[in-house]
Amino acid sequence: MRKVVSVVSGGLDSSVLVHFMKSLGYDQAIVSLDYGQKHSKELDYAKALAQRLGYEHVLFSPDLKEQWQASSLIGPDTPPAGHYASPTMASTIVPNRNMLIVAMAATVAVRIGAEAVVIGVHAGDHPVYPDCRPAFIAALSEALQLACNVRVLAPFENLYKADIVNLGNNLNVDFAQTWSCYRGDEHHCGVCGTCVERREAFTIAGVVDPTVYENA
Amino acid sequence: MRKVVSVVSGGLDSSVLVHFMKSLGYDQAIVSLDYGQKHSKELDYAKALAQRLGYEHVLFSPDLKEQWQASSLIGPDTPPAGHYASPTMASTIVPNRNMLIVAMAATVAVRIGAEAVVIGVHAGDHPVYPDCRPAFIAALSEALQLACNVRVLAPFENLYKADIVNLGNNLNVDFAQTWSCYRGDEHHCGVCGTCVERREAFTIAGVVDPTVYENA
Repeated sequence: MRKVVSVVSGGLDSSVLVHFMKSLGYDQAIVSLDYGQKHSKELDYAKALAQRLGYEHVLFSPDLKEQWQASSLIGPDTPPAGHYASPTMASTIVPNRNMLIVAMAATVAVRIGAEAVVIGVHAGDHPVYPDCRPAFIAALSEALQLACNVRVLAPFENLYKADIVNLGNNLNVDFAQTWSCYRGDEHHCGVCGTCVERREAFTIAGVVDPTVYENA
Repeated sequence: MRKVVSVVSGGLDSSVLVHFMKSLGYDQAIVSLDYGQKHSKELDYAKALAQRLGYEHVLFSPDLKEQWQASSLIGPDTPPAGHYASPTMASTIVPNRNMLIVAMAATVAVRIGAEAVVIGVHAGDHPVYPDCRPAFIAALSEALQLACNVRVLAPFENLYKADIVNLGNNLNVDFAQTWSCYRGDEHHCGVCGTCVERREAFTIAGVVDPTVYENA
């Protein structure tokens, strides 16, 4: 069976990605990154997803927190409320995080003989996050192939989040088992950048949103 | 002053690289990687180099040892004796190590405002190590610039190790303060792949080798 290593945050996009790759017939290992984010709630969802599907889950914890203090996801600043695609979301950039996680995931790919590292970046990520854009993914894939004959695949790079919701709905993904919120409270806050994006995606997709939000 | 982040193992090549970049007028931070190698003696040399020159030294210890057990530098196999450019040296490959260390070094570059990550790969590395070849470095640099506007520079990629010895000699580098040997004994063993390469480079360069070898 063809194998891939899937990068999974525990959020909606990467959780649908795992189900999508499964529907295409791939065996998978799941890699997650504890990068020093203020809460690790999403990682529990990633681990639970791997357990439900019977996939190996590898959690990496690189010692980069001190380097990334300028990001509001890690350092003293607070992640902003507002729209996910707004320039104010730039404070949530974690510089070069995607190269780092792909570089780590590739070591798993070599170990298990997987042909690619798969990552769930999508078209809605492109405005704010440079390491989610197709040109970056293409260059990184070229480098990784040269280094160890593993590709980088971003099957959602031409889809918007609403498309991913529709795809996940078609694949019977239980969206309640995914976590997006920048805060780590009991329920999704409903107002931070990623909650706003999540809610909007369900609305655009016309799919019932099972998420419980603190602020309705 | 222009800044770079220099990737330094503590070996001969990267130690000369630091002095070379200093001679060109750059300020530097030094990044080293404890990747689970069987001895960390070389890292003491990297740290000491940074201290002598007054540069920040950042040591990263990514939790990748379990992924890299197939490499003879990390897992149960013994690093081979013989010539460094021989196919038998393939067991010393650590898959995707250079992308990983550059990805980590780039986070330091962003933090301190450095324009590039500098790495000491050279023409003698190319036959055995895919992630030391110019095509890989070029693709990685392209990806890194897209991600966070930091370049990858490999100033020695068109030089052989003997050239690096001559360059270091011209820069008055104290070669005795560098460590190459795959073993971590008191002195260089003189027979492992990297000792053979080191000795040969001094001979070709016509530079007196100050290294003490166990096996003369």
